[in-house]
Amino acid sequence: VSDLAAIGIDVGGTNARAALVTRDGEIVERRRRPTPVGDADGLVATLAQLIGEFDPALPVGLGIAALVGPDGMLHYSPNIGVRDLPLAERLRAEVHNPVRMLNDASAAALGEQRAGAGRGIDDVVLLTIGTGVGGGVVADGRLVMGHQGFGAELGHLIVEPDGRRCPCGNRGCLEAYASGTAIGLHAREGLVDHSIASSLRDETELSGREVSAAAAAGDAFAASVLTEVGRWLGIAVASLTNALDPKLVLIGGGAAQATAPWVLPPVRETVARRIIGAGWRTPPTVQLASLGDDAGVIGAGLHAADLSDPVEGR
Amino acid sequence: VSDLAAIGIDVGGTNARAALVTRDGEIVERRRRPTPVGDADGLVATLAQLIGEFDPALPVGLGIAALVGPDGMLHYSPNIGVRDLPLAERLRAEVHNPVRMLNDASAAALGEQRAGAGRGIDDVVLLTIGTGVGGGVVADGRLVMGHQGFGAELGHLIVEPDGRRCPCGNRGCLEAYASGTAIGLHAREGLVDHSIASSLRDETELSGREVSAAAAAGDAFAASVLTEVGRWLGIAVASLTNALDPKLVLIGGGAAQATAPWVLPPVRETVARRIIGAGWRTPPTVQLASLGDDAGVIGAGLHAADLSDPVEGR
Repeated sequence: VSDLAAIGIDVGGTNARAALVTRDGEIVERRRRPTPVGDADGLVATLAQLIGEFDPALPVGLGIAALVGPDGMLHYSPNIGVRDLPLAERLRAEVHNPVRMLNDASAAALGEQRAGAGRGIDDVVLLTIGTGVGGGVVADGRLVMGHQGFGAELGHLIVEPDGRRCPCGNRGCLEAYASGTAIGLHAREGLVDHSIASSLRDETELSGREVSAAAAAGDAFAASVLTEVGRWLGIAVASLTNALDPKLVLIGGGAAQATAPWVLPPVRETVARRIIGAGWRTPPTVQLASLGDDAGVIGAGLHAADLSDPVEGR
Repeated sequence: VSDLAAIGIDVGGTNARAALVTRDGEIVERRRRPTPVGDADGLVATLAQLIGEFDPALPVGLGIAALVGPDGMLHYSPNIGVRDLPLAERLRAEVHNPVRMLNDASAAALGEQRAGAGRGIDDVVLLTIGTGVGGGVVADGRLVMGHQGFGAELGHLIVEPDGRRCPCGNRGCLEAYASGTAIGLHAREGLVDHSIASSLRDETELSGREVSAAAAAGDAFAASVLTEVGRWLGIAVASLTNALDPKLVLIGGGAAQATAPWVLPPVRETVARRIIGAGWRTPPTVQLASLGDDAGVIGAGLHAADLSDPVEGR
């Protein structure tokens, strides 16, 4: 197939998913391996095997749930349990393909912008709601990742300076209010005073999934927890809109779809009210991402293809 | 002179300042006119006259204290008192030069990044502290202005969702905590309970200038007001660092220099503590901008020169 662009790989805390990606962002062929966790050598070996199953001439884009540098250093990943691993360099010793690395949520943002809900739009922000909150920024058609590649950690926008403790160690980050984990925590706290759908009363673990199910079953308290999440997301999206003026803000990640009926309306309402020029300016469109789990693989592949292009590559 | 790049113009609420700018960001020749306020026809005539004093073949970059679109529409400027003025189009009817418009703080950010304190650094954020708080973002060497050109309104990052009322009409914007105006308000509120340098006790108007003077004279309350401003700026810069990962954050604008001894240390301390990866990651350098009032003129000129370049222009 002549328009094959790259091998995209999305490395999460559970699976490493690989695919052949075309220039149009179509997936041609897929592979998957469990991610070795807390095992740097195993991670390198697994990824080298995955890459080895594809054409050695194609560039590889590696989207990874970690703070990664543009030089291919994996600085830190709590989910994968690895730190200070020169991953791209280690892979280059095993495979012949050029390897480019980026954060998984940035990869997903590029995937959505080029081949998903953001196709044809140059200024797109993605927020992913899952175990944590991730983010990616495409400005004027290009990923914004910062000088060390640590940018677009949009889950760590500070929305309440003296607020809830975040898993990152700081206080008041968006992630402490709007992740699937945070949704479960809010709901548990509220259980003392409020009803929640009776099927959930015995759950010891609550997450975005259970709270969405309760809301869908008509539980007013569960719905109010999700509405509150939407307000916090709205504060963050309003700040991002004032900073970046995106045309489109996409909400993706594992908890996005189920929570959307309660979360998206207060996001939109808060953004419309809070942005500069509120009242006369058109706010960004806020909607669900469309590529699901494929966004990261596609975006990672397209990122590698861009950088291998003689005009764009550096 | 062969390396002349463009005519840069910086239009504020008081003066319109114009200059011939070289490709290196040097200013060769200057002009200045009072800005007609609340007078759209007068504004067009004044700018046309200014431009007419220079070479009609050079591109014009117009940095303006307003929400401006990339199409050259001046949507809204409280300081200049004009709304919905198709300024670039009106100017094109009067002068032969190509005219490009952008927000004045974005122009200043580009000026600092290309010819000032940020020279040689690709990822730079500028915050300007004056009557209000403005901002500009350069990511990977390019201005980030968003799809309507309304981006980098960094004074309207929300730092305290239920916080102080901002002149923009919303609550809790950075500008409501860190502008020169806000510094004066904080100080006035504190006068009930605290001492401030006796020379200021009779002032009916307090601004960043008077509070800085009091702090410099040893007034502990004035110093504490400025330290608090630094903490709020630090919250915003931490969020911006998590979102954009700049290598350098510059503080400019009329109130920056005098307040810096009290403001910059808590900004740096807050950023180092609040960013993701705090403890092992190098935070951005936070320092004063270097071009003063010339940043906007230089940046506006270089922006126009970039867009007139056959490779960069669109």
